[in-house]
Amino acid sequence: MNSAALTLINGQPQELWSVRDRGLQYGDGLFETIACLAGRPRWFDHHLGRLALGCERLGLPLPEGAVLRAELQSCLGAAPRALAKIILTRGVATARGYRPSGEERPTRIISAHQWPLGKDAEFRVGLSRVTLGTNPLLAGLKHLNRLEQVLAQREAAAAGLHEVLMCTDPGEVIGGSMSNLFVCHDDEWLTAPVTQCGVAGVMRALVLELAPGMGLKVRVAPLAVRDLAAATSLFVTNVRLGLQPVHWYQGRRLAVDERGVSLQRLIDDAGE
Amino acid sequence: MNSAALTLINGQPQELWSVRDRGLQYGDGLFETIACLAGRPRWFDHHLGRLALGCERLGLPLPEGAVLRAELQSCLGAAPRALAKIILTRGVATARGYRPSGEERPTRIISAHQWPLGKDAEFRVGLSRVTLGTNPLLAGLKHLNRLEQVLAQREAAAAGLHEVLMCTDPGEVIGGSMSNLFVCHDDEWLTAPVTQCGVAGVMRALVLELAPGMGLKVRVAPLAVRDLAAATSLFVTNVRLGLQPVHWYQGRRLAVDERGVSLQRLIDDAGE
Repeated sequence: MNSAALTLINGQPQELWSVRDRGLQYGDGLFETIACLAGRPRWFDHHLGRLALGCERLGLPLPEGAVLRAELQSCLGAAPRALAKIILTRGVATARGYRPSGEERPTRIISAHQWPLGKDAEFRVGLSRVTLGTNPLLAGLKHLNRLEQVLAQREAAAAGLHEVLMCTDPGEVIGGSMSNLFVCHDDEWLTAPVTQCGVAGVMRALVLELAPGMGLKVRVAPLAVRDLAAATSLFVTNVRLGLQPVHWYQGRRLAVDERGVSLQRLIDDAGE
Repeated sequence: MNSAALTLINGQPQELWSVRDRGLQYGDGLFETIACLAGRPRWFDHHLGRLALGCERLGLPLPEGAVLRAELQSCLGAAPRALAKIILTRGVATARGYRPSGEERPTRIISAHQWPLGKDAEFRVGLSRVTLGTNPLLAGLKHLNRLEQVLAQREAAAAGLHEVLMCTDPGEVIGGSMSNLFVCHDDEWLTAPVTQCGVAGVMRALVLELAPGMGLKVRVAPLAVRDLAAATSLFVTNVRLGLQPVHWYQGRRLAVDERGVSLQRLIDDAGE
């Protein structure tokens, strides 16, 4: 598989599309990044659930799950490991301006990408100076307006970091630019709410669902920058990284909470 | 001219482009909408100035003004009236993820669109329930992350309104979903700052520059929802509408401040 072996647009193998699509014009759409093993998307129902919520908020028709699943499998072939991406936009603009005409037909773009094996031995994280705007209507969604994350990742690259954590203007820590955050305490783990901004990550949901089964309490609670300064162990999560231990935060060495390793195994072995 | 008579992508007449462009993937880019008369873009230097600021903030190379101007003119032909659009993105992704590789080559999309004559006799405006997230790094720019505006315009359409005014979560009124706002008082006009969110509109800049020449004081000042409730006259501005008098705000009939009509004439006659 090449970096993008195959792209399907509305079911047809092609990689070119009209620049009048509202996805490009306004970021008017959603996406999902899906971890795939042996040609099968993992946690597909979680991804579909988030996509459904996004469609509801944006007023887009949700594609049929069976169609998405078939197109994903067609893109993936028998690839042992891959990251698949679904982009869903409102479609090619039929009129000028932000206002949808209501006559657009959604655009569905499915692609498969390499997912190299192996993790960085030392995962370095900092605190971003790029703040997150808040909007409860968009919070939690994986929508196509990702400039804040792009700016944060530019900053991370310049600082030689893998990831940066992002705050709202009042200083509430929401998560990483491409990940959710868990702060590990002895008695419980904490992760920030994603009701004002941030993405409701699928791996975050799996941690919240599966941790209690191994006796680990995980709670959604507001996090402040000072909570990070006091933390002895942090994880960032997404479907690509899984539960990624943070080895360095703002130049400070952290411990790896071994419960994260056990939880990763539990998630890897989970049914879906 | 059809609704999009001609599109140039990086100088080539074409309308299809790779869906791997970061403009579509992440909204990683900027745009300008330019009023054009007799095949000439108006206030080009204002648009180029805002584009330059956006390029600086996003870390994109600014295209040469002469190239953009030549491409605009090629798209416009001799059209007596048209709206031209420039989209500038970071380019086709060369790697997966938010982080730019640094090896992208920017994508430049120029298109021309119909600009029908005539205004609605009764321009109706409401107050949006869609709030604006704040981010000083993106404020003022005309970037491609416009979902808040799309949601606001869906709301406006459902309510039979031309435009809706948008506030930050703490209730500061910033402007319209597709326009800037001026609140008319006897002694001065007020418009909101765009340093936390909102777009630094070209027509807004022209009002601020040219109003003093006709003895009208215009001041940038924070606006609250109660200021609108007390207003007897409002204008919304963009390069398509010019100074658009608001005839109805939240179902309340407003007066037209005749100074706006004079100022519109002054702007129409301005050199560029």
